[in-house]
Amino acid sequence: MFDSLTYQKRRKALREKMSNGIILILGNNEAPANYPDNTYKFRQDSSFVYFFGHSHPGYAGIIDIDNGKDYFFGNDVDMDDIIWMGPQPSVKELAAQVGVEKSYPFDMLKEIVGKAIAQRRKIHFLPPYRYDNMMLLEDLTGIRASMTKQHASLELIKAVVSLRSVKEECEIAEIDKACNVGYEMHTAAMRLCKPGVSEQYIAGVLDGIASSYGRMVSFATILTQNGQTLHNHDHSHILQEGRLMLTDAGAELMNYYCSDHTRTIPVGGKFTGRQRDIYGIVLACHDKALELARPGVTYKSVHLEVCKVLTEGLKGLGLMKGNTDEAVAAGAHALFLPHGLGHMMGLDVHDMEDLGQCYVGYDEEVQPSTQFGLASLRMGRKLQKGFVITDEPGCYFIPALIDKWKAEKLHTNFLNFDEIEKYKDFGGIRLEDDILITENGSRFLGEKRIPITFDEVEAIMNE
Amino acid sequence: MFDSLTYQKRRKALREKMSNGIILILGNNEAPANYPDNTYKFRQDSSFVYFFGHSHPGYAGIIDIDNGKDYFFGNDVDMDDIIWMGPQPSVKELAAQVGVEKSYPFDMLKEIVGKAIAQRRKIHFLPPYRYDNMMLLEDLTGIRASMTKQHASLELIKAVVSLRSVKEECEIAEIDKACNVGYEMHTAAMRLCKPGVSEQYIAGVLDGIASSYGRMVSFATILTQNGQTLHNHDHSHILQEGRLMLTDAGAELMNYYCSDHTRTIPVGGKFTGRQRDIYGIVLACHDKALELARPGVTYKSVHLEVCKVLTEGLKGLGLMKGNTDEAVAAGAHALFLPHGLGHMMGLDVHDMEDLGQCYVGYDEEVQPSTQFGLASLRMGRKLQKGFVITDEPGCYFIPALIDKWKAEKLHTNFLNFDEIEKYKDFGGIRLEDDILITENGSRFLGEKRIPITFDEVEAIMNE
Ligand SMILES: [Mn+2]
Ligand SMILES: [Mn+2]
Repeated sequence: MFDSLTYQKRRKALREKMSNGIILILGNNEAPANYPDNTYKFRQDSSFVYFFGHSHPGYAGIIDIDNGKDYFFGNDVDMDDIIWMGPQPSVKELAAQVGVEKSYPFDMLKEIVGKAIAQRRKIHFLPPYRYDNMMLLEDLTGIRASMTKQHASLELIKAVVSLRSVKEECEIAEIDKACNVGYEMHTAAMRLCKPGVSEQYIAGVLDGIASSYGRMVSFATILTQNGQTLHNHDHSHILQEGRLMLTDAGAELMNYYCSDHTRTIPVGGKFTGRQRDIYGIVLACHDKALELARPGVTYKSVHLEVCKVLTEGLKGLGLMKGNTDEAVAAGAHALFLPHGLGHMMGLDVHDMEDLGQCYVGYDEEVQPSTQFGLASLRMGRKLQKGFVITDEPGCYFIPALIDKWKAEKLHTNFLNFDEIEKYKDFGGIRLEDDILITENGSRFLGEKRIPITFDEVEAIMNE
Repeated sequence: MFDSLTYQKRRKALREKMSNGIILILGNNEAPANYPDNTYKFRQDSSFVYFFGHSHPGYAGIIDIDNGKDYFFGNDVDMDDIIWMGPQPSVKELAAQVGVEKSYPFDMLKEIVGKAIAQRRKIHFLPPYRYDNMMLLEDLTGIRASMTKQHASLELIKAVVSLRSVKEECEIAEIDKACNVGYEMHTAAMRLCKPGVSEQYIAGVLDGIASSYGRMVSFATILTQNGQTLHNHDHSHILQEGRLMLTDAGAELMNYYCSDHTRTIPVGGKFTGRQRDIYGIVLACHDKALELARPGVTYKSVHLEVCKVLTEGLKGLGLMKGNTDEAVAAGAHALFLPHGLGHMMGLDVHDMEDLGQCYVGYDEEVQPSTQFGLASLRMGRKLQKGFVITDEPGCYFIPALIDKWKAEKLHTNFLNFDEIEKYKDFGGIRLEDDILITENGSRFLGEKRIPITFDEVEAIMNE
């Protein structure tokens, strides 16, 4: 947790961006896995963490825009709680730690929200994603649980996005630390990646490192020799010589700041010629994004420049053909890169995704596309100093998608399907780093960069 | 997964125990951590696993009692799913794998349940613990989400408990395997338990082992030098020489079968005299339970015999006094052992706890107690061959509880508070193994027993 002033300043800044009414920020509760008391590792709501700091179940906060006051809700522990969970500070003390004077038992939330509703004041809340909080919102506001998301406050969403998008110095320091844990995870994976080892074994080791040095993984690890499946959470295979192992994994610190890196490495420790060809293209794409990312540039334009580097590279290998700009404008390259260049990162690995990608990654100036591939770009808008984003180009050979496009004769003026066919057993490559937009450009987050060049990767794998 | 016959037999057995109507078994869905698409590791509902085998989100099953047919609900994947998650078998194939002929898209569930309601047939469902399933039940049946638990079918609960309580051979083999992973976890903890190491580091390593060899931990690991806090999930301390480290941890296999063991070991590898005194008593309690557990005996009676061994031991140290039987009948020993001797285990670490402890651990013959301590006994009823239960006595010195009882002058005829005061810095000890009730007694689960005697523990810690 940061000092109480940090939270006071954030709430004040939020209040100043809002017109009137009260802002309700619900914390998360325990999430049952297989019965009510067997819960997953607790994960606080990121906006609650941002404005009210505390990381325990059963809290809520209210920021009153009109009277300038904040309220903290939670229940003090009783003797039974002390026996089972140990002594805890009082709710009054917790509130004071984040600069809130007024604290109440949780049940008072209903009374206070009810009073505000009776006074016809506007109740602003963020889109709920936990079903218990949807049910709580129904109880508090009378809106049906399944409809609460649609009643979230757009004014509040935009205000929160504008604050959380620009990372404070204290936040950047934490993201750097999360990336250091990410370094440990990825270098461990590189050392363990040998023929005969199971994907699951290595993925488990990464879970362990994230848990030993942070809270947990920042998302379910993707670790697979079938990298052509973009979000492959199946770890059931045994690594085979000659395949590539794609690892997309990150850590979440105890205070929830995240990392998210991807590396793709040759099982056995030596890239084949064909792997070098594709890997070199993806690395060039990755470098291109680094070269271009700076304040004032839209990330959509960076994404499109990267797609041109990809297209040029694939033309060099005879997989694509024709005019590069036209191919990218038509979206032909999306056969190989059906996802976007990156996303915001911070307290969430896809930062603020619960608030809506169209508000986090887009604005009046840059609107989401509907074109296959570009539509999956999570972050398109103009970069600002203090943004933390990922740079994660990839190149995939997805048999089902190749078959479909070939059968439909899609983009035949840009795609050499006969050559592409030969790569159907290739898999996929993605390379991802987390970067901070600085005054004049960008910098990697984390103390050391995870090995990425051919020499660096082959060196650590053959130590 | 087991063969299709296993699931067919189970559904048939369930149907035969029920009177009429349809049985609705909802699978679990993804559980969002911090936004809808960032989900925890998937955890299927255990009863769904038991009757319908499959471990993916988005499924439901119906067992029609009246016409003897089963129905499987789920959605086939589309091209987008294949790109992001890889190819998957069709729902028809999934259904066939568990011996179900009829499969439907998930949306048909509403139509089929609606039809049954219109025909005034009884809809049996189990108590929901996931809030999204409460909302789904509201949508299917019209019962308010927050009230669905109260409308669960007691007839179904009792029938499911009677089946799942007695473990099949194929299930016992899986629990043995889960216990083998537990062995790896606990012996790793023993080797890492040195002064200066953080609790979090070791707990993380255990998370990793569970994840490398199974799905995940079967519950949030308790690993602490403050063992007097019963469910201590705080891992923020650095281990100190002279303290005890209590580790209560288990693994869940990919197919969800569990383990749950506790060991308490001296930081630094050598028990002190005082630690030996208390540890010896807890070990004698543990052995007593093993000696007594067999078919036909109630676990409540075993619990009470164990409490007598504890009381005798503490009398020997001058912490308790008076008549042992009277002290246990009065509940005086519960100052040191405020929890029960054990619980059922299987597909859940507290098996079927979602169905209600009073139906799983109790019956017409043995009813739950309201006495402090005994009230926390999760399993009281008569043991049967095939039951898998835990044997987990403990002895704790909980400062807040000691202060309270002393101030209230509770059980002063059985408790020597002046002596007890001297142990307020002791912490707590618990020793737990998983046992199978056999024809004539019981056996440990798992290939090797985790070190438990003084010699075994000190040997592995000083390897
Ligand atoms: Mn990413
Ligand atoms: Mn247990």
